[in-house]
Amino acid sequence: MFKELKRTKVFRDPLYGYVEVKYEVIEKLIDSKEVQRLRRIRQLSGVNMVFQTAEHSRFCHALGTYQVANLVLSHVEGASLLTPYEQILFLISALLHDIGHGPYSHAFENILDVRHEEMSARIITYPNSDIYKILVNHQINPNDVADIIRKKSKYKVVEKLISSQLDVDRLDYLARDAYFTGATYGNIDINRLLRSLIITKDDVLVRASGIHSVESYLMSRYHMYFQVYYHPVARAYELLLETIYLRIKDLSQNNIKINANLEDFLNVIKDSNNLDSYNQIDDSYVAGFIKQLVKSEDEILNKFANAVLNRKLFSYIELDEFANLAEIKPYLNKKYYYYESSVSAVAYLISKGENEIQILLPNNTITTLGKYSKIIEALANQSYKEVKRIYYFKD
Amino acid sequence: MFKELKRTKVFRDPLYGYVEVKYEVIEKLIDSKEVQRLRRIRQLSGVNMVFQTAEHSRFCHALGTYQVANLVLSHVEGASLLTPYEQILFLISALLHDIGHGPYSHAFENILDVRHEEMSARIITYPNSDIYKILVNHQINPNDVADIIRKKSKYKVVEKLISSQLDVDRLDYLARDAYFTGATYGNIDINRLLRSLIITKDDVLVRASGIHSVESYLMSRYHMYFQVYYHPVARAYELLLETIYLRIKDLSQNNIKINANLEDFLNVIKDSNNLDSYNQIDDSYVAGFIKQLVKSEDEILNKFANAVLNRKLFSYIELDEFANLAEIKPYLNKKYYYYESSVSAVAYLISKGENEIQILLPNNTITTLGKYSKIIEALANQSYKEVKRIYYFKD
Amino acid sequence: MFKELKRTKVFRDPLYGYVEVKYEVIEKLIDSKEVQRLRRIRQLSGVNMVFQTAEHSRFCHALGTYQVANLVLSHVEGASLLTPYEQILFLISALLHDIGHGPYSHAFENILDVRHEEMSARIITYPNSDIYKILVNHQINPNDVADIIRKKSKYKVVEKLISSQLDVDRLDYLARDAYFTGATYGNIDINRLLRSLIITKDDVLVRASGIHSVESYLMSRYHMYFQVYYHPVARAYELLLETIYLRIKDLSQNNIKINANLEDFLNVIKDSNNLDSYNQIDDSYVAGFIKQLVKSEDEILNKFANAVLNRKLFSYIELDEFANLAEIKPYLNKKYYYYESSVSAVAYLISKGENEIQILLPNNTITTLGKYSKIIEALANQSYKEVKRIYYFKD
Amino acid sequence: MFKELKRTKVFRDPLYGYVEVKYEVIEKLIDSKEVQRLRRIRQLSGVNMVFQTAEHSRFCHALGTYQVANLVLSHVEGASLLTPYEQILFLISALLHDIGHGPYSHAFENILDVRHEEMSARIITYPNSDIYKILVNHQINPNDVADIIRKKSKYKVVEKLISSQLDVDRLDYLARDAYFTGATYGNIDINRLLRSLIITKDDVLVRASGIHSVESYLMSRYHMYFQVYYHPVARAYELLLETIYLRIKDLSQNNIKINANLEDFLNVIKDSNNLDSYNQIDDSYVAGFIKQLVKSEDEILNKFANAVLNRKLFSYIELDEFANLAEIKPYLNKKYYYYESSVSAVAYLISKGENEIQILLPNNTITTLGKYSKIIEALANQSYKEVKRIYYFKD
Repeated sequence: MFKELKRTKVFRDPLYGYVEVKYEVIEKLIDSKEVQRLRRIRQLSGVNMVFQTAEHSRFCHALGTYQVANLVLSHVEGASLLTPYEQILFLISALLHDIGHGPYSHAFENILDVRHEEMSARIITYPNSDIYKILVNHQINPNDVADIIRKKSKYKVVEKLISSQLDVDRLDYLARDAYFTGATYGNIDINRLLRSLIITKDDVLVRASGIHSVESYLMSRYHMYFQVYYHPVARAYELLLETIYLRIKDLSQNNIKINANLEDFLNVIKDSNNLDSYNQIDDSYVAGFIKQLVKSEDEILNKFANAVLNRKLFSYIELDEFANLAEIKPYLNKKYYYYESSVSAVAYLISKGENEIQILLPNNTITTLGKYSKIIEALANQSYKEVKRIYYFKD
Repeated sequence: MFKELKRTKVFRDPLYGYVEVKYEVIEKLIDSKEVQRLRRIRQLSGVNMVFQTAEHSRFCHALGTYQVANLVLSHVEGASLLTPYEQILFLISALLHDIGHGPYSHAFENILDVRHEEMSARIITYPNSDIYKILVNHQINPNDVADIIRKKSKYKVVEKLISSQLDVDRLDYLARDAYFTGATYGNIDINRLLRSLIITKDDVLVRASGIHSVESYLMSRYHMYFQVYYHPVARAYELLLETIYLRIKDLSQNNIKINANLEDFLNVIKDSNNLDSYNQIDDSYVAGFIKQLVKSEDEILNKFANAVLNRKLFSYIELDEFANLAEIKPYLNKKYYYYESSVSAVAYLISKGENEIQILLPNNTITTLGKYSKIIEALANQSYKEVKRIYYFKD
Repeated sequence: MFKELKRTKVFRDPLYGYVEVKYEVIEKLIDSKEVQRLRRIRQLSGVNMVFQTAEHSRFCHALGTYQVANLVLSHVEGASLLTPYEQILFLISALLHDIGHGPYSHAFENILDVRHEEMSARIITYPNSDIYKILVNHQINPNDVADIIRKKSKYKVVEKLISSQLDVDRLDYLARDAYFTGATYGNIDINRLLRSLIITKDDVLVRASGIHSVESYLMSRYHMYFQVYYHPVARAYELLLETIYLRIKDLSQNNIKINANLEDFLNVIKDSNNLDSYNQIDDSYVAGFIKQLVKSEDEILNKFANAVLNRKLFSYIELDEFANLAEIKPYLNKKYYYYESSVSAVAYLISKGENEIQILLPNNTITTLGKYSKIIEALANQSYKEVKRIYYFKD
Repeated sequence: MFKELKRTKVFRDPLYGYVEVKYEVIEKLIDSKEVQRLRRIRQLSGVNMVFQTAEHSRFCHALGTYQVANLVLSHVEGASLLTPYEQILFLISALLHDIGHGPYSHAFENILDVRHEEMSARIITYPNSDIYKILVNHQINPNDVADIIRKKSKYKVVEKLISSQLDVDRLDYLARDAYFTGATYGNIDINRLLRSLIITKDDVLVRASGIHSVESYLMSRYHMYFQVYYHPVARAYELLLETIYLRIKDLSQNNIKINANLEDFLNVIKDSNNLDSYNQIDDSYVAGFIKQLVKSEDEILNKFANAVLNRKLFSYIELDEFANLAEIKPYLNKKYYYYESSVSAVAYLISKGENEIQILLPNNTITTLGKYSKIIEALANQSYKEVKRIYYFKD
């Protein structure tokens, strides 16, 4: 149905050997300027300040997620229940799910007040985007892809495969981030996991016999959160960026001119639907204006831009019984200098049922993972436990 | 103090690159007939019937455990608190801890009613053994080694490093058995784990900051139990051996002659202190008499020896809500044909304290792992959960 | 065409994740007693005396070779040119190619004067074998399989895939033996290699663009030969076995009775077509009679059986400029005590053309690897270089 | 002698587990702005356009090279012949050897006409650099480090370990670049290699018994050259940068103003000794001005800046028998649009002796690798073979 390439195109990848591209539409989407932009955004923002090898881009994660989707289609029982159109939607959504990310995405979302998934959906449905045109040219409705990313429940199984507590996105990034940081916790036995899954007409289930691979995957997730994603030093670095973003926003809302190359950034702050400007913004764009802000007349911008370049990070304390509160008193709630941070790495969320991972028992009834595994129940509780930190910037 | 080799001798090993031997006493012990016998005993008994690559011997595990001890001495903070004599005792005990194993050890212990640790200690202190002579020649008291293996609390720190809930034995075998089975659960970050340990004058502690590597290690242990060590089919195979062992014992106690080469085996059954005979018994010894028993006049031996060769295994059911009890009724308690098996893979044991893994908190107080980690608490409870199986042999 | 299993059966394997069995005939062949016998024969005979982890069996190599054949069918361009019958013949031949091996195969072949390939073919076409019956039951002509193994040029492409200078056998064993010894030289990028191959109507070609993966594979082969397969100490150990085999043969031809369990072995020496006896002989069979020969009245058997158990190996010198010939003078040509050995590890054989690896150039002409790559030309020459060793046994 | 840190500081690294820092001077050097700048320069310039995961920085290679030096000191026989001062010089030189690299280094060197090694030496001896001050503060003469990098033969053994045909630099980058590209050719058995080395008073030798690990290392090098480093598409991308650099230089020499943020770049072109400006220039600096040049009034800058952003690469043909010369005729020698490129990946250089890898024979004489190994001789010849390519830019 969908046009195939004459010869499968491959991208070398350390995790899967190859990323394999069979359809023309996928090839063209990879070449689109919106997907290519992901080459210039690091997957792990400031984590490279702690794990110096973590320089990999969101682009290779996009390809990786797409390849996991490929593997799902070829290895998971029941995948053939998906129609050809659903299958291609699945591959495309896997590839495109993260195109809405900005540089230092967490900080960026805080300023914009729009989540990256929403930005992804907007870009896909923006008639001026390469992506939109490619999709339309290949008889794919961009709104279908956007609806999957926005979770409109139109293609429920595909949605679940793209974004749930066990999805192609997480399978790729846990393994990938472990590989590129050198953390050893992200070892996921993806072959075994895929063999445990069953796609039915309206759901994705895990056989009870595969419980160990799921437990192991969630433990990886839990450890990666605490060891990598929420590393306090990485956060301390990202807060510098967040402070600069915030100050820029504050100044621009007060119509105070900043002497730096900030046009696209200001456009986006003013209107998050300005997707042409959005597409200009990437890690090196930010690195560019930070270098200029080093000489800014605004004291805050000046100070924090210099802090970035000289790696002068926010200090932090954990709010536990041993916390020395006197230390932070002078900073309390002082704008730009003080942040509270609650890290609760929810490796698994026990909920009212339908969002949980569904376990297919030997007698063909279904239960939830939270009920089936005491370990995961404990993990869910443990990972809820908030670690509260106060970050403050000492002059 | 202890004689060093002119040049470090090495054994290639897939897990550590090399096993490195610096002391003459270690080199000679490795060459002793008692350690060499471990080459002829598979580490995982019948597991190779399920994981066909699991043919590795107890010998390579002995070398591996020794090498982990090496790494402890060179990498763990506080290792230098051990005296030179304690250090060499540690290396030697690591190498020798398993020499008391027999072929299909679990079944063998059941017949002998002596645990392999006790057999190890006896061999070490048996004046006719190579090991005894080598130790004495190198000014090492064999009783000191035996006491460590028998846990006499004379060298408490060494004892704990050799055998506790986090010891060099487990660190090697989890990783090794995972490597040779192809299971992916045994990935242990040994570098990180060793960096988390602290040896004090009278204990071995884990820094709280290393909690993730310990949690991860125990999860590996838990998964290896269920996926590999207690695999029901491996058990079903080992029960054939156990039945043959048992029948031989029963016949010999009734003075019924068996037409096979069984002298050493019968010697040992009669007197588990017959260490010369003990040393003759290994996997190929058992394979040898099983081939002969195929034509035995004793119906039981005949039947089960044939079953081994033709891989006709015990059947089993799990005693859960779905169990079909009618199926097993004819076999109930029928000697040789019926076994009850309770698998409770205790990946971690929460106890009254001193046997637990000790966690050193940032404020320099100490707590137990069971209290510190909810996940491990759940793991301990979950892994207690018994799986009850009935094995029965259908003619 | 060929009966498929309801659900793909898998065997865990560290190299490929899983060995996947789709056809009933393959499942049944794996369960045959002739294939199961390979569980009891070590892949690398005496190499475990040097690399102590090399205990893996010929069984796991048989499964591995079969799995590589699977990968060829699913990944190599042009594989669909093979008819369904040829495809199944290919899978079966891959699985069965080594069933003719005996224990310590090299020594065994020397005594029997029959190569293991010929023995494999005989077993496959022996109407009493499980294999024969299974094949016939599944509409496969055993002679077709035997002809492939005997290289009768009936199914040329399949033959080439099974046995040539780049075949599924070597791809598996190089990688596997590297994995289980811990040698690091056998790293083969099998994904890339398979992508470089093209199956045509009557040949298997390698694209010139894939030259690097082929060069790398042959270098691995070369290094594995020198580092592992022809390790002089492994050879020194195997010569003990060879001497015992030889002495048994000599005595039996002179009708001298040997006091040990040797019936099947003697049967086979007398008549290599005695396949029922052949099937009884495996590593533990040999271990069994060696233990008995320790007390043999025949001085030679006695001496060498004791040597095996006490690891008293043949000494050796290399016949180079530095050789101390005086050392070996007393042993010169003394039967049982003296062997000459010429090791020429032919990692690649440059021949008159058709047996060479064929390279498909960008202009669609074909050349040979020996002409195309200077490195391989040098490798071929270098690996021809004979290392001559004299092995002699000092009392 | 040199101040040690209270507790060894570690950096996680996927290749070695950890990079370990014991001395204060190393810690401070890592924190210097000149070493930190390497975080912002990709190790493999434009290779990420072909291998999308190759985003790793020169910073992690600097740490890795330093760690290999650490391993040399702790594992290589004879390392203790180096004085404490030489040892610390070795560690420092390993860490600093690449600080002179600019963004897209090859292109940059072509413009500046200064090699990066010379730039490294200048930075180290520049009194305003952090590095200079740190060294002086720790009683290390910066000129000693610079002399090693400039190969002044003052510390011959250290020089050889830092830069020769078998040095810590190459050992790290081959393995690292393989890891981060996913190429599988860079697998180097560093443990075994280090065990093969011997440091003598005035040289670094390789035992003949280690020949296989050296052959294997050089084959890796050879394959990495052709598969990764000289990949024609990576080169085609880098030529865009080179063209832009060149045009900027030409315009500035003609005093034509360019409307972009180029001050530091122009300073450096004018005077390569302007190290303050040099230190400002990194990958994101270049990314920054390229974005500005997209709207340049200069047609050449405009065209090529746009080409970079839209990945419109140079075309190329190989000058072999099949070359279509008509295709390139219109571009012949047209400045900016035409480049000739001769790739001769010299994986090993056979020279008049002293620069070759020295092999220590069993009889304690020394020969060169080129004489000792036919394979390396062929490799040397084969890798000399030039591949000539014409790159041209089609409007």
